Amino acid sequence: MFYEFEIRTRNEEEIIDITKEIENIIEKSNVKEGIAHIFVPHATAGVILNESADPNIKIDFLKAIERIVPKRNNYLHDRIDSNAAAHIKSAFIGSSLTIPIKDGNLYLGTWQSIMFCEFDGPRSRRKIIVQVISN
Amino acid sequence: MFYEFEIRTRNEEEIIDITKEIENIIEKSNVKEGIAHIFVPHATAGVILNESADPNIKIDFLKAIERIVPKRNNYLHDRIDSNAAAHIKSAFIGSSLTIPIKDGNLYLGTWQSIMFCEFDGPRSRRKIIVQVISN
Amino acid sequence: MFYEFEIRTRNEEEIIDITKEIENIIEKSNVKEGIAHIFVPHATAGVILNESADPNIKIDFLKAIERIVPKRNNYLHDRIDSNAAAHIKSAFIGSSLTIPIKDGNLYLGTWQSIMFCEFDGPRSRRKIIVQVISN
Repeated sequence: MFYEFEIRTRNEEEIIDITKEIENIIEKSNVKEGIAHIFVPHATAGVILNESADPNIKIDFLKAIERIVPKRNNYLHDRIDSNAAAHIKSAFIGSSLTIPIKDGNLYLGTWQSIMFCEFDGPRSRRKIIVQVISN
Repeated sequence: MFYEFEIRTRNEEEIIDITKEIENIIEKSNVKEGIAHIFVPHATAGVILNESADPNIKIDFLKAIERIVPKRNNYLHDRIDSNAAAHIKSAFIGSSLTIPIKDGNLYLGTWQSIMFCEFDGPRSRRKIIVQVISN
Repeated sequence: MFYEFEIRTRNEEEIIDITKEIENIIEKSNVKEGIAHIFVPHATAGVILNESADPNIKIDFLKAIERIVPKRNNYLHDRIDSNAAAHIKSAFIGSSLTIPIKDGNLYLGTWQSIMFCEFDGPRSRRKIIVQVISN
């Protein structure tokens, strides 16, 4: 029960709702109860749960994380590759999620969507791995 | 092995130790070795591990996160629902924990307690899901 | 499939690459497909994924988290034990990772290494627990 899909990102920083793609995988897996493990194999991206209904949440989130980890701040890593802030954001946010599956569906709250976070785009191929563990 | 319980929160922001409730569930599950998956299906709350012995840690933690994500900061989402900061805090902190189970108990460090984080309370019904995976 | 090993930390704050140790455990486990669960049973340490190739990333990361959670900031907990900032950093960063296993190896991105984060060292014995879940 190991699935993988790719997305393309179009901006340097971007939040992309991937809930539907994950839900389709859970359905295909035929697992009725268990855990979905979502993993992003990239050190300058991440994955979070957050509200998707109001698209402004994405803008607020990117502004908030930029305030916490400014893009330029005399990072030593920027001398060889100018993406230190993206690495730090990725480490803070995290690269994985674990979500309950019940009755064959993701057991998410009303306002929880699965969001891929791009911090060093645009990139033509960002991978997302989904594993389904049956109870 | 899918369990769910509810707690009531009494303040706008609040940290509540839920270790005992989770430990009781592990005991009932009769699983001796495996993983406990704790999940909060809310986009304005979260769950962390931290020290519970000194109650001041909770106050320090809430002040630290308020410093990082101020309650008011011209968030766009606040125009329709004044809880943008709570959404951002939830995304930073995370909605789930995975904890080893050994000899029928949570394998936590001496100073690790499981803490529910309310960022948009008070709420009469906050859910906590616990899944127990046997090795 | 419950493994435990210890490391020694040598500074107050320190990032230590533990990918090799974890990879050796996965190999010993003989699990070909599944999930590796890495857990740190300490409330003043944590674990992240990040780039290891450029050692400056570690320095940038520690500076960034110090900027967010300053070591001294009138924390109440510091009156009884002067490590409040370490507790807050640990709660922010998190104590666990879940990583896919495929073809008998950790399925990490090219730039992802597993990094133990010491926030209250030096300590002679920091524990790392590794559990391997077979698909």
